[in-house]
Amino acid sequence: MVVESYKELSPSEFFYRNRELAGFTNPSRSLYTAVRELFENAMDACELHGIPPDILIILREIQKISNEVSIYRLYIRDNGSGIPEEHILGALGKMLYSSKYILRQSRGTFGLGGTMALLYGQITTNQPIKVVSATLRSRKVHQYTFSIDIRNNRADVKDFKRFRNKERWHGTIIDFMLEGNYSRVRTKIVEYLKYTATIAPYAEITFIDPEGRFFYFKRTTTKLPKPPKETKPHPHGIDIEILKKMLYESDEDMTLLEFLTNKFHRVGNRIAKKFLAYARIPGEMTIKELLRTSDRKLIERLYRALQNYDGFLAPSANILSPIGKEAFKEGIIKEFEPKYVDVVVRPSSSYKGHPFIVEAAVAYGGKIPGGPGEIVLFRYANKIPLLYDEGSDVSKKILSNLSWSSYRRPMDGPTAFFIHICSTKVPFKSVGKEFIADIPEVEKEIELAVRELLRGLTRYTRQVQKKKEAVKRLGIYQKYLPQIARFSAELAGRKPPDVTKLISRVEEKYKVKKEIKV
Amino acid sequence: MVVESYKELSPSEFFYRNRELAGFTNPSRSLYTAVRELFENAMDACELHGIPPDILIILREIQKISNEVSIYRLYIRDNGSGIPEEHILGALGKMLYSSKYILRQSRGTFGLGGTMALLYGQITTNQPIKVVSATLRSRKVHQYTFSIDIRNNRADVKDFKRFRNKERWHGTIIDFMLEGNYSRVRTKIVEYLKYTATIAPYAEITFIDPEGRFFYFKRTTTKLPKPPKETKPHPHGIDIEILKKMLYESDEDMTLLEFLTNKFHRVGNRIAKKFLAYARIPGEMTIKELLRTSDRKLIERLYRALQNYDGFLAPSANILSPIGKEAFKEGIIKEFEPKYVDVVVRPSSSYKGHPFIVEAAVAYGGKIPGGPGEIVLFRYANKIPLLYDEGSDVSKKILSNLSWSSYRRPMDGPTAFFIHICSTKVPFKSVGKEFIADIPEVEKEIELAVRELLRGLTRYTRQVQKKKEAVKRLGIYQKYLPQIARFSAELAGRKPPDVTKLISRVEEKYKVKKEIKV
Repeated sequence: MVVESYKELSPSEFFYRNRELAGFTNPSRSLYTAVRELFENAMDACELHGIPPDILIILREIQKISNEVSIYRLYIRDNGSGIPEEHILGALGKMLYSSKYILRQSRGTFGLGGTMALLYGQITTNQPIKVVSATLRSRKVHQYTFSIDIRNNRADVKDFKRFRNKERWHGTIIDFMLEGNYSRVRTKIVEYLKYTATIAPYAEITFIDPEGRFFYFKRTTTKLPKPPKETKPHPHGIDIEILKKMLYESDEDMTLLEFLTNKFHRVGNRIAKKFLAYARIPGEMTIKELLRTSDRKLIERLYRALQNYDGFLAPSANILSPIGKEAFKEGIIKEFEPKYVDVVVRPSSSYKGHPFIVEAAVAYGGKIPGGPGEIVLFRYANKIPLLYDEGSDVSKKILSNLSWSSYRRPMDGPTAFFIHICSTKVPFKSVGKEFIADIPEVEKEIELAVRELLRGLTRYTRQVQKKKEAVKRLGIYQKYLPQIARFSAELAGRKPPDVTKLISRVEEKYKVKKEIKV
Repeated sequence: MVVESYKELSPSEFFYRNRELAGFTNPSRSLYTAVRELFENAMDACELHGIPPDILIILREIQKISNEVSIYRLYIRDNGSGIPEEHILGALGKMLYSSKYILRQSRGTFGLGGTMALLYGQITTNQPIKVVSATLRSRKVHQYTFSIDIRNNRADVKDFKRFRNKERWHGTIIDFMLEGNYSRVRTKIVEYLKYTATIAPYAEITFIDPEGRFFYFKRTTTKLPKPPKETKPHPHGIDIEILKKMLYESDEDMTLLEFLTNKFHRVGNRIAKKFLAYARIPGEMTIKELLRTSDRKLIERLYRALQNYDGFLAPSANILSPIGKEAFKEGIIKEFEPKYVDVVVRPSSSYKGHPFIVEAAVAYGGKIPGGPGEIVLFRYANKIPLLYDEGSDVSKKILSNLSWSSYRRPMDGPTAFFIHICSTKVPFKSVGKEFIADIPEVEKEIELAVRELLRGLTRYTRQVQKKKEAVKRLGIYQKYLPQIARFSAELAGRKPPDVTKLISRVEEKYKVKKEIKV
């Protein structure tokens, strides 16, 4: 008989064993994920605090292990808000410890990508990790050298230094070693940075790669979108465990009426009273009474009623941080220099209690990649470019099912669509968080945005077409009209008339000048 | 200025927030995942202990919530080894606590699927969970009613009973409520059970579904494959963190020579000495000395040497539990009643220090689903049927790239291939664990198995073809030979000869009887 041995894992041990869950599969993908996770943390550390990001990434090859694997040193520096000293080791040396476990739009997906990247580096190279950080207006800069104690899910400090911060520098520097294969992910990493820069023209991003190449994404504006704000949950956005947690964490002498108005998003006194009448639960009942009632089903009834009541106000989107029309346009022009660009920002909407905003852009010409007539799609969620699994994304579906014959677009080059959705909860369809589910509310907003862009593009295409024809016609007039005039005049035995006025009038009508090039 | 609030999550809280990581996405998929995870635990609880499984699953609809969601009660009973009393609440009420965190072939993927299913039930229905369990030869049966305290990652006991176990029953019963949508996953659940039954003819599986339908997969043998065994790691199968952990957990007075021979799979004294010479590390150095040496790089050098040394023996596969030729054939016949079935068990092989065995079967006719000439693929990993993402699986790739013109198969019906790989570490390609990566070693074994099956199938097809022709020829002989004989005899003015002997000789030659139907 085999006796089973039971064992408990620390969160670090679990993620160390299942690192592919967080995107750390093979050396190339892992390197990409590590750069991406730390870069996103860096961007968030700036944007959430209204600081125009200035981010430097240096990746150097330290040692070749085999044809497929090398050891790299990854250095990443931001000018963000810094990590308070007491949280440095927690935020970077401990799994499931993060400032992202609140209800707020942010890039991070699980609040563990940064620590996973460091853990992956440690697993593959056995080297300690160096972190330097200073918060805003801090008089000190803190520097920790540590490794992650996987068994106990905590940082094991090797060295600590505190420096005077004369220049009042703020931000975070992370410096560590990891295995990878750069040549296989070079394109992905550079694309990822370029596409991020496209929607963040207020960010200065510098990347020096292991081959010594220098990628510089210039800042063209210092105007940042307003940062996202933390929000309270909407009654339609919770599950029963969240409700219970909210009840247990509230003052138990609070009445249910107070609970509803204080703890939920957009629930005022009037709506709360109406709701309680609908749920047939007395508003003056206290949380204590609710929790201790013999009626076990009461909490469940409260929960179902919260789910089903349709008198709540839709969640407000003013806690979200969209890119904004200006910045979106600015970024696309900066990175792609198109002939035509147009941006549509849809009014906010919501699904299942989560507010969201769709922003979309269309661009044609310049450095937009692709062949003539091709439709290219750039997808973003909470300001992260989505580079994988395009085929399964709702935006791809919408573009594929569109009745293209109703619209016109220039066919001498590719047309690019940029689609961004931001939300406190982006409706990703799968674990990989690389594509958006086709939730009807979201689908509708994207489709409306795309159609609006296409109407604009159709007008532009017609105008260009018209101009082309006018230029052609003008060419003919200019060539033949004077001759016809001269010939007719000769036939009639008269002096040839001045046709320049006539030509001007034609130019006038089609609003073209001879020098126009289309 | 926004002050960031840092927060630590318990493992339960993390998985509760990210339940899609474990397959709990929408109500239908979640129901499928819950049934599957608990069923796999039940199968493992029997097979790992050599007990022929007898598993009962009852799923009942309790309450319709909406058109898309109902509350179900899921009852699942096995006759396995039971959970020791002191581990019941840990194994089922606590995340990251399991008996599967050892190096052994088992169905489970993360060691948290069972608890996740219960947690999902609790989140969606707010109902407590009931577990009844008795270990082998236990005098008592234990019954716990509990809920999971997500905040503190532990079970919160509502009720506990201890019964006398007169019949010496052993096994586990789990009984709880969860939200789901059965109609959308009925087919998947039934397919999943049928395909499992196909490779486990020693299991008795009963499923009563919410519509009152009864699915019964009969046991046709009580002969079980030998259970898998726990193993020590192979030097090529570790990473530097495992090496460090092994060093720290060993007696620090142990020499490195002892460490290598005691703690690794298939490393004997002779090989260990050769390896140490290769690595230029003294074998008499103790672990203490290694850990305290000023040469920080020594552990890393030891690790790299372990990775690169090619003088280690390949990992042994006798710790694995393949299905076996007999059981595989038996199961396919039982579930599909084919006209032709053949099984190939490949010799064990290994990749990156992990042993694996490929078993494959081909079947034609009977209840094999599919159209004429169609190739159908059934994939299994560690005895789990893989139902999703077939297109990305290495087996699909092999079947697609095969030069089919070199082989023959019956074209009047579909041909099914069943491919099973078992290993201490199945090389899944993605997080979903639904398809196998195309690792060269694995690819080679599958291809060899498939080719061998195809040679057999070609012989069978030729034989059938021959028989068909013989029967046809025989028909002609039988019809015309007596007439020709009679006619010739009449012409010659003689008595007609007895041609039955001649016909028998023809029958003999082609080994067919008149009654043969092909």
